[in-house]
Amino acid sequence: MIAIDNLLEFFLETRKHSEIICEPLETEDYVVQPIVDVSPPKWHLGHTTWFFEEFILKPHVDNYQIFDADFSFVFNSYYETVGKRVVRSDRGNMSRPSVKKVFEYRNYVTQATKKLFESEQTKNLNDLLEIGIHHEKQHQELLLTDIKYILGNNPLLPAYSNEFVEHPIENHPQDWISVEEGIYEIGHNSNNFCYDNELGRHKVYLNSYQISNKLVTNEEFIQFIEAKGYQKFDLWHAEGWDWVNQNKITAPLYWHKIEGEWYHYTYAGLKKIASNTPITHISYFEAFAFAQWKGLRLPTEFEWEAAQSYFPWGKRWEWTESAYLPYPNYKKADGALGEYNGKFMVSQKVLRGNSVATPDKHSRCTYRNFFHPNLRWQFTGLRLAK
Amino acid sequence: MIAIDNLLEFFLETRKHSEIICEPLETEDYVVQPIVDVSPPKWHLGHTTWFFEEFILKPHVDNYQIFDADFSFVFNSYYETVGKRVVRSDRGNMSRPSVKKVFEYRNYVTQATKKLFESEQTKNLNDLLEIGIHHEKQHQELLLTDIKYILGNNPLLPAYSNEFVEHPIENHPQDWISVEEGIYEIGHNSNNFCYDNELGRHKVYLNSYQISNKLVTNEEFIQFIEAKGYQKFDLWHAEGWDWVNQNKITAPLYWHKIEGEWYHYTYAGLKKIASNTPITHISYFEAFAFAQWKGLRLPTEFEWEAAQSYFPWGKRWEWTESAYLPYPNYKKADGALGEYNGKFMVSQKVLRGNSVATPDKHSRCTYRNFFHPNLRWQFTGLRLAK
Amino acid sequence: MIAIDNLLEFFLETRKHSEIICEPLETEDYVVQPIVDVSPPKWHLGHTTWFFEEFILKPHVDNYQIFDADFSFVFNSYYETVGKRVVRSDRGNMSRPSVKKVFEYRNYVTQATKKLFESEQTKNLNDLLEIGIHHEKQHQELLLTDIKYILGNNPLLPAYSNEFVEHPIENHPQDWISVEEGIYEIGHNSNNFCYDNELGRHKVYLNSYQISNKLVTNEEFIQFIEAKGYQKFDLWHAEGWDWVNQNKITAPLYWHKIEGEWYHYTYAGLKKIASNTPITHISYFEAFAFAQWKGLRLPTEFEWEAAQSYFPWGKRWEWTESAYLPYPNYKKADGALGEYNGKFMVSQKVLRGNSVATPDKHSRCTYRNFFHPNLRWQFTGLRLAK
Amino acid sequence: MIAIDNLLEFFLETRKHSEIICEPLETEDYVVQPIVDVSPPKWHLGHTTWFFEEFILKPHVDNYQIFDADFSFVFNSYYETVGKRVVRSDRGNMSRPSVKKVFEYRNYVTQATKKLFESEQTKNLNDLLEIGIHHEKQHQELLLTDIKYILGNNPLLPAYSNEFVEHPIENHPQDWISVEEGIYEIGHNSNNFCYDNELGRHKVYLNSYQISNKLVTNEEFIQFIEAKGYQKFDLWHAEGWDWVNQNKITAPLYWHKIEGEWYHYTYAGLKKIASNTPITHISYFEAFAFAQWKGLRLPTEFEWEAAQSYFPWGKRWEWTESAYLPYPNYKKADGALGEYNGKFMVSQKVLRGNSVATPDKHSRCTYRNFFHPNLRWQFTGLRLAK
Repeated sequence: MIAIDNLLEFFLETRKHSEIICEPLETEDYVVQPIVDVSPPKWHLGHTTWFFEEFILKPHVDNYQIFDADFSFVFNSYYETVGKRVVRSDRGNMSRPSVKKVFEYRNYVTQATKKLFESEQTKNLNDLLEIGIHHEKQHQELLLTDIKYILGNNPLLPAYSNEFVEHPIENHPQDWISVEEGIYEIGHNSNNFCYDNELGRHKVYLNSYQISNKLVTNEEFIQFIEAKGYQKFDLWHAEGWDWVNQNKITAPLYWHKIEGEWYHYTYAGLKKIASNTPITHISYFEAFAFAQWKGLRLPTEFEWEAAQSYFPWGKRWEWTESAYLPYPNYKKADGALGEYNGKFMVSQKVLRGNSVATPDKHSRCTYRNFFHPNLRWQFTGLRLAK
Repeated sequence: MIAIDNLLEFFLETRKHSEIICEPLETEDYVVQPIVDVSPPKWHLGHTTWFFEEFILKPHVDNYQIFDADFSFVFNSYYETVGKRVVRSDRGNMSRPSVKKVFEYRNYVTQATKKLFESEQTKNLNDLLEIGIHHEKQHQELLLTDIKYILGNNPLLPAYSNEFVEHPIENHPQDWISVEEGIYEIGHNSNNFCYDNELGRHKVYLNSYQISNKLVTNEEFIQFIEAKGYQKFDLWHAEGWDWVNQNKITAPLYWHKIEGEWYHYTYAGLKKIASNTPITHISYFEAFAFAQWKGLRLPTEFEWEAAQSYFPWGKRWEWTESAYLPYPNYKKADGALGEYNGKFMVSQKVLRGNSVATPDKHSRCTYRNFFHPNLRWQFTGLRLAK
Repeated sequence: MIAIDNLLEFFLETRKHSEIICEPLETEDYVVQPIVDVSPPKWHLGHTTWFFEEFILKPHVDNYQIFDADFSFVFNSYYETVGKRVVRSDRGNMSRPSVKKVFEYRNYVTQATKKLFESEQTKNLNDLLEIGIHHEKQHQELLLTDIKYILGNNPLLPAYSNEFVEHPIENHPQDWISVEEGIYEIGHNSNNFCYDNELGRHKVYLNSYQISNKLVTNEEFIQFIEAKGYQKFDLWHAEGWDWVNQNKITAPLYWHKIEGEWYHYTYAGLKKIASNTPITHISYFEAFAFAQWKGLRLPTEFEWEAAQSYFPWGKRWEWTESAYLPYPNYKKADGALGEYNGKFMVSQKVLRGNSVATPDKHSRCTYRNFFHPNLRWQFTGLRLAK
Repeated sequence: MIAIDNLLEFFLETRKHSEIICEPLETEDYVVQPIVDVSPPKWHLGHTTWFFEEFILKPHVDNYQIFDADFSFVFNSYYETVGKRVVRSDRGNMSRPSVKKVFEYRNYVTQATKKLFESEQTKNLNDLLEIGIHHEKQHQELLLTDIKYILGNNPLLPAYSNEFVEHPIENHPQDWISVEEGIYEIGHNSNNFCYDNELGRHKVYLNSYQISNKLVTNEEFIQFIEAKGYQKFDLWHAEGWDWVNQNKITAPLYWHKIEGEWYHYTYAGLKKIASNTPITHISYFEAFAFAQWKGLRLPTEFEWEAAQSYFPWGKRWEWTESAYLPYPNYKKADGALGEYNGKFMVSQKVLRGNSVATPDKHSRCTYRNFFHPNLRWQFTGLRLAK
């Protein structure tokens, strides 16, 4: 649990950080939505603000004057409890509110929240604020990956920043960590913040297994490509094979083969691929097919959590074999906040760890990220098990 | 393991049974495919036959004369190893081969198989035959449910048979079975036949839980409908809610409200709904929403298996909360038979038990059936847990 | 106007002829609908029958007992006036009513109509009967072309009949007929039967033009293919070019290139293409692109009609440059019969002449056939103009 | 033909005018594409510029330095001759080049063109420039209508300008102009600029007809709505009826019913509808259904042109009954400019006149505008005939 004194500072820092992420953008970059999964940066800035207004200011500030009544409609994402919302696929059709207006909205809500917390702090209110901060941090990672998609799919391939360390070199030798058969405790286990889906801590029985101390690298993945891994149906799930063929997938997202050499789009523009960095921007289908090709497999999320203190992690979201399901005794929160996690617990896979795009103080070894198995615009990667 | 002497008899019985299922049909009923999941009965008859020809006769009979070279193309379902196949959605566009020709094909292959096994039985060959038999039995259940869909979606609502006991009355009182926290063994555990996905037997840790001794009934489900369960978004997964709205779902499949009363299409035609029979033809989404509405949940497949000897089962395929995933140490078979199960282990939910449409000798407490969460043309149902 | 005495005989002949067309079919062939434009033969047989029951027997026979109340729903095609109908794309999903039942329906309605006309003939009733007969004749052509599509898209490529003369050889030399500039009268001009869309006769002004005495042949069309006509965007309409690319069109419908030689599916099965027969099964887009490639053009429907007595026609429906629009003073009929033609007068092209599949007594030089520009399962062809 | 001295001035004025149209926009408004038919304003500004660079500067300026090699790819619309282009539906996904960069591009090309024409004017070059100017003027109208769509579909309904006279009041009484049967000359007939589709002038024979001196008004159209015109299938083409039902159309585009009163979005924001102004933003399907309901019809484009000097026009693009087809002896231009008109001559309807959004000097009584029959974001309207 965060110290009461620091909470407001944590809030202000977080608000600031979202804006720092957007500094390199042109106004036009805030608006577009090239695929339905990617939201306009402007929308992320507004939506995270709306969250504080809707769940903290409106219920807890007397005579609170909302900034603009229409914004609730525009910036609600999926909270059916709260009323109508703009269909997700239409977010990129809205030129208004302007970026300038969204920044005014941010400032208005930030100041009103600051004022509220300067005068009143209670357990319940602090908890709500902490959720709002973590919600904004989660969107900071999406901001970064959505910006990458927006620029990386523009025919001009414009750069975002030269300072972002996106493809760290990892030279330590690959090794196998052995874990004994037995009962392990899984799930969040402290007073610090976590999402409802990480609770309650419970026992699982694991068979003995081995897990790699290292993420799969570009070099290994290029071997898979050269061994015609994308053309061998027996390495793929049936749905994965359909996905490969319908989308004509032949390499990870952002990869381009130019005159026989592999390049990829990075935040710094188009660059040659380095061999000894962890592969990224692959779908679960690709991760699974790679493991099949190696004669190995992905770990389950329980295997990952039980072993995680023995290996370095944090560069890539690691696809696991686990489906995203409730833990035993999972209890979703009441009201709109209950829509945060539980209603997505079907058809998605769990990813563990965190990535180069995850903001500070938003990482836990019990964190359960989740995406559909075909998606790959996040900084996804894989670690093998056997 | 089935006694060698009985295997051939088991084979002939099974072949016969598929044809008995089709006896009430008109020739026209064998041909159509009203939705992509439902195959024409003619196709099931041909496909199960092709399986014996392709995997037993062609490799093991010297100078085997195939019945028709084109049939491999027409009746292959998803075995990419074996070559090109008719796209699934085109099965209902093929008026040829005729039903008569398909029956000739069946007889030809049945006789050739009989002849082979009268002269030669080996462990390997027997195993293949047993797989082929179970494959055909699995298609017998699909034959029945596909026939129901074909006739039940025809505007004339023609009857199939008056003798099929589809909606058994269950009058025993509902009770809760308590299971202790601890380690349980899960998976197939004998020399008898099973599919690869039921192996290998392994330990799981279960928290203490309670599971109902009874399936949810029509009466209870009508209460859910009347309580506006189909209109309350907070009972549904996000994907389930989209499914309800896009398909305008307001009741289980085959249900019709006529002058204020609920009827459903049955094999005997349109009938009034009985209150004290187990609900069926619901999707996982509906099962989950019902449980949410009750403040309860579905069991996992492990909870189901650990408790199953304490309650009667066998009328409905019971949706579980578990995703269809490999057991630890799962090893898929080599070659085309390896395509049977493993490649579907993504995006599907496990169903346990068996149904009124499951053929004799095709039921095991370790059997793992699986379907996408939106499908409901099987005899699906649900049992609650807490 | 047909002699009153012969009308009943004409009716009975026509009814018989539809059934003769179906004689070579297997029961299964009556049921399927491989694309939405193609109807199951069973449906044509029922729909033409329903037309007599709905528009003649029900209003004009006292206490007429309809054959089956559900058939009005099943066999109505697009007459919104008459009530609900099965969605066109669902026709191939209906195994019932059975073919046998449809033939009973035909016989029932034919006999009732015969009985009615033996006792009563009036101008109004005769007109209705004549429309019904021509309606059935129109469906006879569709029966033939739909059967060809059903069998010609079956992977077994089964034959229908060896006696159908589908690709007549035409050896007369190609020549240009010159027509003088001036006013021409267009439209139907006798007391004989015609559809409302051929009325009223009116004047059009034509510039001088030349029109070919001969249809374009397979040989000429192969030259177009070999000159890469399907790859040259500047020969195509923008919509045509999209159609070519989305559907990967590289040759007329039913054409197959096998070891460097062109074959096509015919009613007699797969055959080598003859060079000196008129090209068929091409879309308007292909006809237009061919003409562009030649530096020529298609005639308008007025040019065609004004010149038609100077050249032989009747093997292929000839695409014209004209859009299907009402003639001046066009007046659509009242009630359901008014839905016959007028409501299709947008987005379609006119075809003139008739084809090898057109039944006897269903051909007129003023007949206006119409299809969307991408369709080619009719016996379409083209004649050049300049 | 425009006087040589004035051509350069005409060019500079036209370039300026496009930018004046965009003055009220926020940067964000330049970027979005809410439906495929609507292009981002930024794209119009770039595309009209690219046209001058591609067809005038590149071929006619020695050592011309192109502004940015990628822009040819980004701003080409449909000129297949000129190479690859961004798929139309992706225009709204491109945040770059920025608006600022596009304005730099405009200025660069405008100055280079000015310099070229100050030093060299030839017949051929002047003709190209004149086409380029008219091309830009055509896009000015699209700019206006696309801006209206972008703002009018934004949930905030922002205003564009209060000065645009969009809904002029017309109080003159409705009357019928009679035109005699006979031969009329149709098509462009001077040395002034026109598009290739208006040539060559030719004779048509018209039956006697009457045409209204007045456009249909909002008041009349509200009567159609209140008479349940949108619910009566017999007023509609079959395709129109499908369009109404699939899109749930119940009123013209931009109309909203609020507490029993009709409002519409205008450039000045949401306003009450005035009864005595010409109806606009209707599809051809709606225009046709309205005429059917009145027992009248739309004029053909020939009837319109022959009568146009007898009535005022110029507020609305008037849907005609005519399909967009080539005139006799139509000859499309060589090269890329030949793609301008001819390749759209299928499936579209002709509109005559011009609208409140048409720029100065871009209107002719022989001008043939064309759109698909379902589109209505232009200032479309209708005039009745009989």
